[in-house]
Amino acid sequence: MQITAAKKDLVRALARAQGIANRKSTIAALACVLLQTIEGDRLQIAATDLFVTVVDVVALDGPPRQTGGVALNARDLLDRVKALPDGPVHIETSERATATIRGTGKLKYTLRGLPADDYPSLPSPKARAAELEIPANALAGLLDRVHFAISQDTTRAHVNSSLLAWGNGEARMAATDGHRLSVAACFATAPKDGRALLSQAAVTELRKIVGELGDEPITVRRDGSVVFFVHGNVTFGTKLVDAEFPPYEQVIPNTSASARAQIPRKAFADAVRAVALASDFSADQNGASGVGVIIALGEGVAHVSCESARKGLATNEVPIEYAGKPHRVRVEPRYVLEVLGCLEDEEVEAFFTGELHPIVFRPATGDTFVVMPMRL
Amino acid sequence: MQITAAKKDLVRALARAQGIANRKSTIAALACVLLQTIEGDRLQIAATDLFVTVVDVVALDGPPRQTGGVALNARDLLDRVKALPDGPVHIETSERATATIRGTGKLKYTLRGLPADDYPSLPSPKARAAELEIPANALAGLLDRVHFAISQDTTRAHVNSSLLAWGNGEARMAATDGHRLSVAACFATAPKDGRALLSQAAVTELRKIVGELGDEPITVRRDGSVVFFVHGNVTFGTKLVDAEFPPYEQVIPNTSASARAQIPRKAFADAVRAVALASDFSADQNGASGVGVIIALGEGVAHVSCESARKGLATNEVPIEYAGKPHRVRVEPRYVLEVLGCLEDEEVEAFFTGELHPIVFRPATGDTFVVMPMRL
Repeated sequence: MQITAAKKDLVRALARAQGIANRKSTIAALACVLLQTIEGDRLQIAATDLFVTVVDVVALDGPPRQTGGVALNARDLLDRVKALPDGPVHIETSERATATIRGTGKLKYTLRGLPADDYPSLPSPKARAAELEIPANALAGLLDRVHFAISQDTTRAHVNSSLLAWGNGEARMAATDGHRLSVAACFATAPKDGRALLSQAAVTELRKIVGELGDEPITVRRDGSVVFFVHGNVTFGTKLVDAEFPPYEQVIPNTSASARAQIPRKAFADAVRAVALASDFSADQNGASGVGVIIALGEGVAHVSCESARKGLATNEVPIEYAGKPHRVRVEPRYVLEVLGCLEDEEVEAFFTGELHPIVFRPATGDTFVVMPMRL
Repeated sequence: MQITAAKKDLVRALARAQGIANRKSTIAALACVLLQTIEGDRLQIAATDLFVTVVDVVALDGPPRQTGGVALNARDLLDRVKALPDGPVHIETSERATATIRGTGKLKYTLRGLPADDYPSLPSPKARAAELEIPANALAGLLDRVHFAISQDTTRAHVNSSLLAWGNGEARMAATDGHRLSVAACFATAPKDGRALLSQAAVTELRKIVGELGDEPITVRRDGSVVFFVHGNVTFGTKLVDAEFPPYEQVIPNTSASARAQIPRKAFADAVRAVALASDFSADQNGASGVGVIIALGEGVAHVSCESARKGLATNEVPIEYAGKPHRVRVEPRYVLEVLGCLEDEEVEAFFTGELHPIVFRPATGDTFVVMPMRL
């Protein structure tokens, strides 16, 4: 292989691939990215950890002087390309999978790699119809609004993942860890119903990639146990989680008879964050506070407070729109902050269904966020 | 104690004190800052770890409604004051050393503290003449130019510290870890000779404080085994290290017969940094690369290269002013980068005294940086 490409294009594709290449793997090839010349004077840059795969394509400066491929350590290659001056970057491989990398100056790197054949085979979507078409920024929004609710418990695959479902002209995502549930939806083109359970690792990587892509459409294609997200030259693939996401609709409480408040999103979040300083966060290694924050609703006001033996007492008040009966509930502040932090609404509807029953947040988008309370 | 002060003044003083309050200490009081009303409608804010002490003074909004003092957890208090709205902050203590902290809004904190009497006594400079007067930014410059050469070996007190010496109208600092030596000097008012050995911890804290103070003079006063740095309301004190700094002047090689190069500081540092990517940094837990970087001088050019089994090869060239014989030396790149990184000169004189002998960097300020080579 002997090629020239622009540094900025290489850095973009290598940075994307580097997130997926797994440095800690005992399989040497998995710490690498695979570079391969493909037709149309282009270079394919791919990385996989055997579950999640990303493939990107970079335009070459003219036809390759020699076609071929090589697998190079992802982190090392990215560091070296970044260190070169802006402009064209030349990559040339010898027969022993050693690559020479240089730019316009005197700086030159030699990196030992692996033959392209030693790299695991990459899944790729068959030429079948897309099951779902969704603007990249809309998918990014769904991921932003559910990812934090994914269970961290890797032994429970069915909740250490997030459901993506589609049909009826919309796409929905849901995630839960048993203490809270996030359900988000957006308009999308989906001729028939379908669903895919995405691992937490896939959600994390997909979120990074999709966040940079603007409002152009992404097509989602399934092929056996792999689901692909295709956007122009970038293809992200992930094995589906082989488990059944819990029937989350049953967890969403009926809020028709609940105490309803209209809360100023930012001011309320600031108030919860400020009193949470009095939470004894050392009480629980998961970052959950041992004591929680008490939200007490009065007419037109929410009293927020927190008290722990080590950190003292904090009290605060936020004006809200509320005309119901006095109501008290104790919640983990992080759960409330993560919900309010992922939204952009000025005001959010909140339903308080009882002292020991969930709070339901409903922004104007129609999403649903359920947060279970702690015992008072 | 019952006082009102501006949030921004409290945050500034508490942030300073918080660096010194020791959260990990088994003595509860050492995790605290001491707040005490003093004459002139002022609040003294102090922290000590029994070796290093900082005392600051904040103007109150009018006379205290009640004088007194309290010791409060440094981190907790700073977090709470920061969370309050900008503007006046009220602090009120009860008899049981419990403090109530509030601003202009509804947010209110209660923190349990310790009586002021439980706080260790603070050393303070006697009203004797200053031994040294030095602009704060000049002292900051000295600290910046020597701190990185301090030995990390806490069992060797004489080099796990930095020497501050004065006399003859100048102040000098020196530090060494056996592999390199930094000596920096600046003009200062010093009627007679004196010296103080400052611990690495003291250098770290002093650097943070002095870096914010501009060009106003700092006076240095000694009182027994404690040296004080006084700048307006801020007093920083530290116990002197009871050891003998090595006779560093003897280590500085005579460069009169050495190969002399004039190197472009930034371009040379960039070249060393770029080839150091091929260093196998995992070879040594101290962050030193196992292999080092080879600098080879030719007429008008420095060839810089690095090769390791794991990270491959990197080569680079930098134009320099050099007309001597070819010369090669292998050095730890970090040592060279730290020297070049603390300077601002466009060009720096470098003396190459031999393959197994030190490189000496001499910027225009007259400072001396000695870097020992590795075996070729």
